Amino acid sequence: MQIANAYSILYSIEDNRDLKLCNSSSWQVREQRKKSKHIKHKMSDTENKAITSNSPSIVVYWLADSRADRILLLLEELELPYVIQKFERGPDKLAPAELKKIHPLGKSPVIKDGDKVVAESGFIIDYLISKYGKEKHLKPTNEEDLFQYNYFLHYIEGSLMPILVMKYIFLNLQKQAPWLVKPVVNGICNKIDQLYLGPNIRAHLDFLEGELKQRKWLAGEQFSGADIQASFTLEMLLKRSNANEENVPNLSRYVAAMRERPAYKRAMEKVGKSCIAE
Amino acid sequence: MQIANAYSILYSIEDNRDLKLCNSSSWQVREQRKKSKHIKHKMSDTENKAITSNSPSIVVYWLADSRADRILLLLEELELPYVIQKFERGPDKLAPAELKKIHPLGKSPVIKDGDKVVAESGFIIDYLISKYGKEKHLKPTNEEDLFQYNYFLHYIEGSLMPILVMKYIFLNLQKQAPWLVKPVVNGICNKIDQLYLGPNIRAHLDFLEGELKQRKWLAGEQFSGADIQASFTLEMLLKRSNANEENVPNLSRYVAAMRERPAYKRAMEKVGKSCIAE
Repeated sequence: MQIANAYSILYSIEDNRDLKLCNSSSWQVREQRKKSKHIKHKMSDTENKAITSNSPSIVVYWLADSRADRILLLLEELELPYVIQKFERGPDKLAPAELKKIHPLGKSPVIKDGDKVVAESGFIIDYLISKYGKEKHLKPTNEEDLFQYNYFLHYIEGSLMPILVMKYIFLNLQKQAPWLVKPVVNGICNKIDQLYLGPNIRAHLDFLEGELKQRKWLAGEQFSGADIQASFTLEMLLKRSNANEENVPNLSRYVAAMRERPAYKRAMEKVGKSCIAE
Repeated sequence: MQIANAYSILYSIEDNRDLKLCNSSSWQVREQRKKSKHIKHKMSDTENKAITSNSPSIVVYWLADSRADRILLLLEELELPYVIQKFERGPDKLAPAELKKIHPLGKSPVIKDGDKVVAESGFIIDYLISKYGKEKHLKPTNEEDLFQYNYFLHYIEGSLMPILVMKYIFLNLQKQAPWLVKPVVNGICNKIDQLYLGPNIRAHLDFLEGELKQRKWLAGEQFSGADIQASFTLEMLLKRSNANEENVPNLSRYVAAMRERPAYKRAMEKVGKSCIAE
């Protein structure tokens, strides 16, 4: 077993994505990303100016291949001024140690709003909407939609994401196992997939498909912060489950509608790619 | 590799605990649990009466060895009328299929408040406190404490729990590996523990110890719903990390204070044991 690889898999599953669901040409994205990698410190100067000249002064500590794209999408929806401080993963796919200077857990997304450090996607989303976004209607005001909004903010990271992360770990352990131990690793991983991960992913797909059959967005007919929390994860779910328009038409329609939002496109332009799940 | 065991491990980590941090004698607990296992349907009749005769009519679908204890603790703190419908795990440690009749994901905790089904610990806690608990002060009203309350409601399941679950899976895969493949499994698991899980658990311990050095409870000087969300998980963290009073004095003090709360003791009495992490 290539331990170094298993190790980097485990690191990268914190805030990672590995989806290729977009239409853009990968080399373009790679080239843009290579460029962005080298302008971090230059950007910081610009950003510092922006922080002092704009109000609110929001900095997003954005890590490549992470859930941080959600926060860009949110800020574009809110049309708030913000700056991005970009962090790239090393060849080992680890988040750089510098991130621990922002928050002791060293994770992304994390933002600074003035002097306040805010972590945890679900909390950042609700915090920013509640503080700055009242007129954008990203948090429902009617009781039923607000119930769904709050439920889905917790559900995405509390229930769905751990299953997808586990699927990712076992898939990659399997892929990277050297021939000598491959039969053992394959045996464990396939069985776990067949008995546990597969049925669980199916249950989540059915659940979400049922919810999105009843309404356009997760919290109701209106796009909300719950959809921003879900954006990255539902694209990941489609990929991991090989689900498509035929077996999950409402979920597929939902993800396609998300990508058509102008805020989504603007957010992706800012980090040099064309979709959140790239 | 004993696939059946690996399988049951994976199932049981959803909503499980396996801690023995309490002072009570285990056999007493086992005996009490054996009894409770056989009274489920009888209880349901009583419960149905309770539902119709009390207001609010809250039913907790409680699964043994699960995060559902949090909700009992909450309801005792709120001093609300409620009934418990108990579900035991099978010998394979799976949650029974009956739970899917309550909520399509078949998980616990899940509650019914009248006709409303509410899932996800963090959401259930905030929902019940906001709806019924204003006079109990379990949700802070000042800005700074409310910020911490909301952060910790998300942090516990979004960041800390996935690491503990992963630790549990790899520890158990290792324990249950038959001798022929044990060296391979040990090699993978030890390395992952050394390089990834260990440092991550250390980071969480340091973070929480730092937070609890600044204030008595997670959200401030006042006990809150954030502590109820944390209760099960922080006991689990102490156990997994073999941390103790010497290296995490504030975290240890916190867990001990939690166990001393009369509501905590009442909740545990209702399910025939003496602590939440049993």
